[in-house]
Amino acid sequence: MADPSTTPPLTRASVLAAHSLIKPYIHETPVLTNTTLDQLASTPRTPEELQGTEWEGTERPANPKIRFWFKCENFQRIGAFKARGAFHAVERLKQTEGLEGLKKGGVVTHSSGNHAQALSLAARENGIPAHIVMPTISPPPKIAATKGYGANITFSGSTSTEREAVTREVIEKTGARLVPPYDHPDIILGQGTAALELQRQVAASLSTSGTTTTTNRRLNAIITPCGGGGLLSGTALACSDLSPSDPSTPGPILVFGAEPSFSGADDGRRGYYSGTRIETVKSLTIADGLRTPLGVYPWSIIYERKLVAGMYSVGEEEIKKALRLVYERMKVVVEPSAVVGLAVALFGEE
Amino acid sequence: MADPSTTPPLTRASVLAAHSLIKPYIHETPVLTNTTLDQLASTPRTPEELQGTEWEGTERPANPKIRFWFKCENFQRIGAFKARGAFHAVERLKQTEGLEGLKKGGVVTHSSGNHAQALSLAARENGIPAHIVMPTISPPPKIAATKGYGANITFSGSTSTEREAVTREVIEKTGARLVPPYDHPDIILGQGTAALELQRQVAASLSTSGTTTTTNRRLNAIITPCGGGGLLSGTALACSDLSPSDPSTPGPILVFGAEPSFSGADDGRRGYYSGTRIETVKSLTIADGLRTPLGVYPWSIIYERKLVAGMYSVGEEEIKKALRLVYERMKVVVEPSAVVGLAVALFGEE
Repeated sequence: MADPSTTPPLTRASVLAAHSLIKPYIHETPVLTNTTLDQLASTPRTPEELQGTEWEGTERPANPKIRFWFKCENFQRIGAFKARGAFHAVERLKQTEGLEGLKKGGVVTHSSGNHAQALSLAARENGIPAHIVMPTISPPPKIAATKGYGANITFSGSTSTEREAVTREVIEKTGARLVPPYDHPDIILGQGTAALELQRQVAASLSTSGTTTTTNRRLNAIITPCGGGGLLSGTALACSDLSPSDPSTPGPILVFGAEPSFSGADDGRRGYYSGTRIETVKSLTIADGLRTPLGVYPWSIIYERKLVAGMYSVGEEEIKKALRLVYERMKVVVEPSAVVGLAVALFGEE
Repeated sequence: MADPSTTPPLTRASVLAAHSLIKPYIHETPVLTNTTLDQLASTPRTPEELQGTEWEGTERPANPKIRFWFKCENFQRIGAFKARGAFHAVERLKQTEGLEGLKKGGVVTHSSGNHAQALSLAARENGIPAHIVMPTISPPPKIAATKGYGANITFSGSTSTEREAVTREVIEKTGARLVPPYDHPDIILGQGTAALELQRQVAASLSTSGTTTTTNRRLNAIITPCGGGGLLSGTALACSDLSPSDPSTPGPILVFGAEPSFSGADDGRRGYYSGTRIETVKSLTIADGLRTPLGVYPWSIIYERKLVAGMYSVGEEEIKKALRLVYERMKVVVEPSAVVGLAVALFGEE
């Protein structure tokens, strides 16, 4: 990984620069809208629907007017936004270390999920070896997918101590550069590029449909799922320092984070409202991409710089309901982690 | 339905006019690309893979270079391209009959599928009553979905004679205008608008990516599924009379039809190569949207005017394989009918 001292400042301008660097490698994913889900989100919930939830007995259920734009990063390369951060990290390493050195030593990460596939793909497209440390107990399809992108897999035990020890061994043996999954400026800046595209795409669709942006019909808020916080903090940077003269950002955009509440996976929310970052999470929520605690860099953006306006959480049943709606009404295949933001918007009373 | 004698000529210009009419009501659906599927389609199949197929023992398996653009009409309103034809038919009826008369009598169709939902939606958005004749044995979710769009449902027996008799009764009682699912010029012109968008979207994406259209990297062919032939014949019109000076159509575009071969559902292909339209089909292919025989108007465009360059068919196993690829690799939920074209491109040796 590029030494953090050489990384660009954590600003919207750096997210724009990251976008220029990775554009040749990534998809500009489509933005979908859905009238049924807009109506559902804009209909107050009945007292019966609130029974058994924490909002049971609310006198006046929330009555928001919501219009959704869904940024479909499930159509991104490798099937997730993680491709953005990985390609950006590799581009930055090419700038600071030179491609030739990287081709010898390669890159390394410990991950069993989307970041492993994203880094493997970014490395392969640059002719760089990728070393992935995965727990022996990883699901065979994930191992196969990562191998499919040409990575060298080294197995480890499943605790973080065991994984880090094996990663250190790989680095000593190969000279590979570590590319962590979220807690690094280059990763955060890469993930933030999705929000830039969303800003432009929403503005373009509203101008085509003849809606004036002087009304309230514009992108007022973005809600993103939050695990380690790479996507959330990158999104927050992309929505900071907005210029009202830029047609893609005619007004301020609030950024919110969404987490599963199951058995403590809402570490970001609890930390945000208590003022102390929570460093360990042990939750088996179905939103398996969001089981990680918030990283140090994300925390500095989300909490210390207050670039995130609020953190919300939802239960497992709400996540499953949102997943089903996305599948049936939007015809889109997503993982549970991807719908946590929608679940908050649909089923949270805040 | 508008009297066919008053309908526009079956030309590309009329498809363009249809597009202007329905644009306020429909989505411009996204176009997806997928490197994995391009590679799969561009890799010759091994002798082992051809074993047990009709191409077993082929000396030199086909070795095409294919780049796919997927027009995602599953993201269209009601989840299918049928919204295009239904909105166009209703707009045309408004022009020829006037909205007030339509609001009294309404519109009627007999269908249990996507056309029923599409017509119900188009009617509701214009304040027009929709009468839908459905077989009593229709699956409850389809009945519920059609009711959800505000239609009045009348049940009938399941043979086409029974359905048509009940439809005539509805017309006599209400004065509703019949909007057939595919065999009418207004429907065909509406469905053809998807291909217009595809032409422009592909040209725009190639020009953004810096690819010159003087090379062969352009939209050379469109393959569409074929049931009653509304989409296929509309697509063929949209690809006829192309002007090389139009940047969205830098060269000719061949149009092909794709059908399931199971128990005679390939009526279009058999008719096309024998010169006689086949009028009845009794197939229970899983591609249930493609069980209908080719209509008279579609036949005149596809066969008599030779605007379709070829018809292909694939088996049930190939359709299931394509469905799985689209689900797993493209993250998109589609019905079996939607992947028959892809199955032909991937698994047909022609």
